[in-house]
Amino acid sequence: MNVSLLVVGSVALDSVETPFGSREEALGGSAVYFSHAACLLHPVQVVGVIGSDFPAGVLQRLGKRGVDLSGIEEKPGKSFRWKGKYSYDLQNRDTIDTRLGVFADFNPKIPDRFRDAAYVFLGNIDPELQLSVLGQIKQPELVACDTMNYWIHGKRDVLLELLRRIDVLLVNDAEARELSGDWNVYRAARWILERGPSVAVIKQGVYGAVLVERDRIFYVPGYPLEDVFDPTGAGDSFAGGFMGQLARTRDTSPANLRRAMVYGSAMGSFAVERFSTERFDEIGVAEVTERVREFAELVRFDIEPEPGSRP
Amino acid sequence: MNVSLLVVGSVALDSVETPFGSREEALGGSAVYFSHAACLLHPVQVVGVIGSDFPAGVLQRLGKRGVDLSGIEEKPGKSFRWKGKYSYDLQNRDTIDTRLGVFADFNPKIPDRFRDAAYVFLGNIDPELQLSVLGQIKQPELVACDTMNYWIHGKRDVLLELLRRIDVLLVNDAEARELSGDWNVYRAARWILERGPSVAVIKQGVYGAVLVERDRIFYVPGYPLEDVFDPTGAGDSFAGGFMGQLARTRDTSPANLRRAMVYGSAMGSFAVERFSTERFDEIGVAEVTERVREFAELVRFDIEPEPGSRP
Repeated sequence: MNVSLLVVGSVALDSVETPFGSREEALGGSAVYFSHAACLLHPVQVVGVIGSDFPAGVLQRLGKRGVDLSGIEEKPGKSFRWKGKYSYDLQNRDTIDTRLGVFADFNPKIPDRFRDAAYVFLGNIDPELQLSVLGQIKQPELVACDTMNYWIHGKRDVLLELLRRIDVLLVNDAEARELSGDWNVYRAARWILERGPSVAVIKQGVYGAVLVERDRIFYVPGYPLEDVFDPTGAGDSFAGGFMGQLARTRDTSPANLRRAMVYGSAMGSFAVERFSTERFDEIGVAEVTERVREFAELVRFDIEPEPGSRP
Repeated sequence: MNVSLLVVGSVALDSVETPFGSREEALGGSAVYFSHAACLLHPVQVVGVIGSDFPAGVLQRLGKRGVDLSGIEEKPGKSFRWKGKYSYDLQNRDTIDTRLGVFADFNPKIPDRFRDAAYVFLGNIDPELQLSVLGQIKQPELVACDTMNYWIHGKRDVLLELLRRIDVLLVNDAEARELSGDWNVYRAARWILERGPSVAVIKQGVYGAVLVERDRIFYVPGYPLEDVFDPTGAGDSFAGGFMGQLARTRDTSPANLRRAMVYGSAMGSFAVERFSTERFDEIGVAEVTERVREFAELVRFDIEPEPGSRP
């Protein structure tokens, strides 16, 4: 039986400038990147909000790929717009403009038909809303969650309450450090595990990501790309690959969590190869499978017989 | 038959301050860290220089571990001293003082008995001296080399000449970027391969290291340490593990280059667990073997049957 995979997050129009070009009002947002990645592995249900000015048809492709868009509400007003500019090496970005529009009053109502979702990803929104979503889901099998420094500082107590109710926290290293107050990512991960989640996933940009459980650590490197066009959405695409693999297999065993990390890193690598979600328009399951195989080769080594006795 | 492994580099007295404590005039230098790591795997021959003030006996332990110290020349004058202070997160360091002493006039003379060295590591010294060392070695099987930004800017032409004559360049990501003028480490590695070496090893600090050959890439993560005391010498210890494994096995096959990367990363992780070379006083082959096994577990995942056909 197919279990359901639900994502709640932003649907946005991103204007992005990188050293390699720019895009104006291209499709973006956490729920959008997540869905593009996850739907390569498993059907996705999306809850989000768009304004009445949202360009018709741009979400259609997702619908054709097995994404249920019926939970995206259209409200009178402007859609969420974000504008950013990346540094020459893509390692830093400045936000030039953020216009929340209808996203400012986003108060996700989970449609009845989505309330039995088994796998749930709470994209980076106000932790109060993330809690409210959780309250609307009947009996999720696994809840994963993202957040950002804005909430870590502004709504710390709510976030800590949320942590007690989720299974997986996916954050980047800077967020893990801010949250825990510890600059060492492994200690930061342990801090997180002591507050609720059984799994912490710390994303480290081009370097890869680490999966920390109470007694296990797994590391997946970033895919070696010579050309990166637009880092926007890499983290949410990672989450989409991670959750898509878990939902597809309905398997949260340690072995499958590791596979999910690799699917996540693969999807993150696809996301950055073009602007916006463009790369996902070009690929299917075959490309994903091939990239996962490349990850296996990237880290493969065999241990030879032990070093002989030494003088 | 044992092949010989030669290192030429600095022997220093390091004064280091980190958030976790400090050491005054502790054993340091590229040849010293390299030897501590490599000698756990294979006998090492060292060429270096110390001043007449070098504390007696501190190198003795290396001698007991199969390191031939007879190529370390004692010259009248002061030993090389370096003093540095690390940032709270150990990611940055300021050099407070550098006193070259006898190292300023270091002009390595390779003793006759070392001239048939098969595996050679040229630690970070003036590339003219590195070339001079190469001219004194009869017929090396594999030459690896380190450098730093000071030489990349100051002696670029000499360094490029050197590149044409070595097999492996081991540098950190910042050095690879400076050298190639490209911020992307994979493009930077390719730039290096086009200039002589058949192997580029790009070290990325806590994130690990990448091995780039013309048609293959291998990634080894940094060992997940919750407590790092002193990052000094991690890169040279990495080089020691890498070269020690190659010399021990006399095997430069792709499979063994990968193993050598893992031995390198293991040795780098030991180096930073204590101040100076202190951690190497505590470990033997068993600890190294165990850590290499942990690396295998750290990146291990198996690919399951392919994702089913999607709607």
